[in-house]
Amino acid sequence: MENKKDNFSEWYNEIIEISGLSDKRYPVKGMNVWMPYGLKAMQFIDNLTRKYVDAMDFQEVSFPVLITRGQLMVEFEHVKGFENELFWITKGGSEKLEEDMAMRPTSEAAMYPMFALWIRSHADLPMKIYQIVNVYRYETKHTRSFIRIREIHFFEAHTAHATYEDAEKQMDEYLIIWKKLTEMLCLPYLVNQRPDWDKFPGAKYTLAFDTVMPSGRALQIGTIHQYGTNFSKNYNITYALEDGSHELVSQTTFGMSERLLAAIISIHGDDTGLIFPPDIAPVQIIIVPIPSRKVDVEAYSYKILENLREMDFRVKMDDRDAYTPGYKYNDWEMRGVPLRIEIGAREVEKSRVTVSLRTEKEKMNMEKDEFFANIHSLLSTVKKTLTERSIDTMKKMTINAENIDEIKGLERIAKLFWCGSEECSRKIEEQTEMSCLGMNHDSKDKGKCIVCGKDGFTAIFARTY
Amino acid sequence: MENKKDNFSEWYNEIIEISGLSDKRYPVKGMNVWMPYGLKAMQFIDNLTRKYVDAMDFQEVSFPVLITRGQLMVEFEHVKGFENELFWITKGGSEKLEEDMAMRPTSEAAMYPMFALWIRSHADLPMKIYQIVNVYRYETKHTRSFIRIREIHFFEAHTAHATYEDAEKQMDEYLIIWKKLTEMLCLPYLVNQRPDWDKFPGAKYTLAFDTVMPSGRALQIGTIHQYGTNFSKNYNITYALEDGSHELVSQTTFGMSERLLAAIISIHGDDTGLIFPPDIAPVQIIIVPIPSRKVDVEAYSYKILENLREMDFRVKMDDRDAYTPGYKYNDWEMRGVPLRIEIGAREVEKSRVTVSLRTEKEKMNMEKDEFFANIHSLLSTVKKTLTERSIDTMKKMTINAENIDEIKGLERIAKLFWCGSEECSRKIEEQTEMSCLGMNHDSKDKGKCIVCGKDGFTAIFARTY
Repeated sequence: MENKKDNFSEWYNEIIEISGLSDKRYPVKGMNVWMPYGLKAMQFIDNLTRKYVDAMDFQEVSFPVLITRGQLMVEFEHVKGFENELFWITKGGSEKLEEDMAMRPTSEAAMYPMFALWIRSHADLPMKIYQIVNVYRYETKHTRSFIRIREIHFFEAHTAHATYEDAEKQMDEYLIIWKKLTEMLCLPYLVNQRPDWDKFPGAKYTLAFDTVMPSGRALQIGTIHQYGTNFSKNYNITYALEDGSHELVSQTTFGMSERLLAAIISIHGDDTGLIFPPDIAPVQIIIVPIPSRKVDVEAYSYKILENLREMDFRVKMDDRDAYTPGYKYNDWEMRGVPLRIEIGAREVEKSRVTVSLRTEKEKMNMEKDEFFANIHSLLSTVKKTLTERSIDTMKKMTINAENIDEIKGLERIAKLFWCGSEECSRKIEEQTEMSCLGMNHDSKDKGKCIVCGKDGFTAIFARTY
Repeated sequence: MENKKDNFSEWYNEIIEISGLSDKRYPVKGMNVWMPYGLKAMQFIDNLTRKYVDAMDFQEVSFPVLITRGQLMVEFEHVKGFENELFWITKGGSEKLEEDMAMRPTSEAAMYPMFALWIRSHADLPMKIYQIVNVYRYETKHTRSFIRIREIHFFEAHTAHATYEDAEKQMDEYLIIWKKLTEMLCLPYLVNQRPDWDKFPGAKYTLAFDTVMPSGRALQIGTIHQYGTNFSKNYNITYALEDGSHELVSQTTFGMSERLLAAIISIHGDDTGLIFPPDIAPVQIIIVPIPSRKVDVEAYSYKILENLREMDFRVKMDDRDAYTPGYKYNDWEMRGVPLRIEIGAREVEKSRVTVSLRTEKEKMNMEKDEFFANIHSLLSTVKKTLTERSIDTMKKMTINAENIDEIKGLERIAKLFWCGSEECSRKIEEQTEMSCLGMNHDSKDKGKCIVCGKDGFTAIFARTY
């Protein structure tokens, strides 16, 4: 298994298959089966998301998947952005439908006709809702599990506000939610403001969260959009002022997808397999008993299992007869369980356990009670290591470029000064195969554009998925 | 509001709207928006379901929503049963698809090609999986929220076994799961074996769980199906025996939907509004403070709120300034909160609370600590009352009929002896507008068919939704 991850693309496909995250042999291209282990991980990510957005007074809803052609055609820029990616339902039973319906590629066109009904006065604002659903995009490019697919597990938050300033505050709140969530997932990211020609169709501006994959390419794992009144004026979403006149609402959205799981697999995994951040690990602790004829390892292990369950950890005991302890260690390491305890005769006799963390080389032998008292801190060690490693990798993958030649043919994240013009961006893209991810939101540095020499700011260019 | 529920259909539509469960103004017929309160209730039902099936070693998966025409055409009876109800995707972007795809009406045709890949040997059996997803049916009949719609929130369990006997044991296990779940939902039901001409398309036999709505009509709220090898022989799902030969698996399924929520709304609700069983109530306890100038009602109420949260109850405090306590009582009664506490100056001064249960007329005034110690038992009272009432209603709605004349024009559940022949069933159906729900699984009584006088068993006939 040495250095398997160096061939990232092959490693990625293999680990998804053997760890039981997803099965891509389903007969429809780009639509995969969520296997139990993968679905659990995604559900834990969803539940963390719910926790953070609920705390900010968002409410969960669920809209229909079908959108009529009429609903869609309301906002022209938006439709244009998605028209090549829509799946169309044209028949019900053997009848041709009176009006074709599209499967949602995102839910603006589904939600905003209802917003127009729901929002009446200032008292209805801000309106903050979200849903966790599948969206559908007829991808013609090469598909890849969790990264580019046609049925996408999707989180989308939508808000409406009385003023543009309130909507701007919402954008700041998204940044806080995003920070909290990615801290739990141990994922580093850059915040980049997409150039106008690559913003979300219909948005005033788009901030994207980009992370770095082991291949050196960037992966967009979340976006937040300021719509201003672009949608509200087309969907007629207004609230009444005291004088009886009506004002358009300002809107924002926040979207992310199963790409979060793709990033977790790719960035944290190693040659041995997956490594799950403890907060979303489907199994946080695996117990491997080493059978003995002298003492009752099973009873001792079972008691520990029960204790850990009572403490609300997600714990499993691997008591399969057909496999050796060594096989089991490898199996659960491959599946990314953050903490393993081994229990043999010596542990039973001395009331101890042997603890192994998925991110650390050394095993630890400790008193059982000491272990119980320290589980949270042990899991924090895993989290800390994952975070440090991934920040470190991102740094290593980032190059501060002073001219185009430096980054030709590279698969790296290029930080460079750019004037913001489409012309200069195209020149960089053509010569490097990188794409412009836009101005970097985290940096206030100023410098001369590496193409034209005019005043510019820090921008990010990279090859992308 | 007196006797509003007597006009059940109107009451049902109104309560769904004003309590904020669902909005049916979405532009696609039969596809409604799940509003926050309704979605929460459904998610609690889902989580109870997960708890009971997980305990029986089921694993959750999620399959794609689209099924190719080729996948569907494998099992003829099954396709025939659904062909008039399929939504067809024929276009992606502006291209015509090479092969049309249907939105799943149920997932046999989606899952079983994968079962054929997954199941290899005895070690893979039993395979027990489930998913909670939306399914799609192009209903041409009148649609009704949660009862007959085109996008259906659906639970489906699918199993595969080495032998028919094992599959029969699975059917028994479903009955246990069903009993546990419906006990939490306080829903009474009959188990009826659907006649052959009304069983699930492709099944060997179907057991249905039917409950009784306030209108006197039956509502099917769950079904379990024994497939035997009907599907496995078409989808080629086999396991290898030791001698190298291959054996077909026997299969079963268990399905239920948001009709569970429809039944809860309809059966438990009263003229005042909804009544949620405590285990799935989005809000279990509502605190209504009655402002006072003498003492700090707010601080006292807030402390109770905190205590209840720590005890893991779903609790809310209604501190809206714009409404009177009386208005709030009505509002939360309408929304079906099982337990209310009122806190005014007298309660604060004496460290007490006034408790009101949604199902009982008398208010109770008790010491704060006594209240904390008794919450579970108070909620159990609500559960007990709901259960008793609904069993009582089912009994009242049931008529033991000795001849057809007795049940002509009735909207009741008719229990009668039937020989099992399609001919006699048709005669009853034609003269009564009732449908044959099949032989009652709970009764072993024998008697003479009320039509032909031949030997028969207890059967159920009723008008249905």
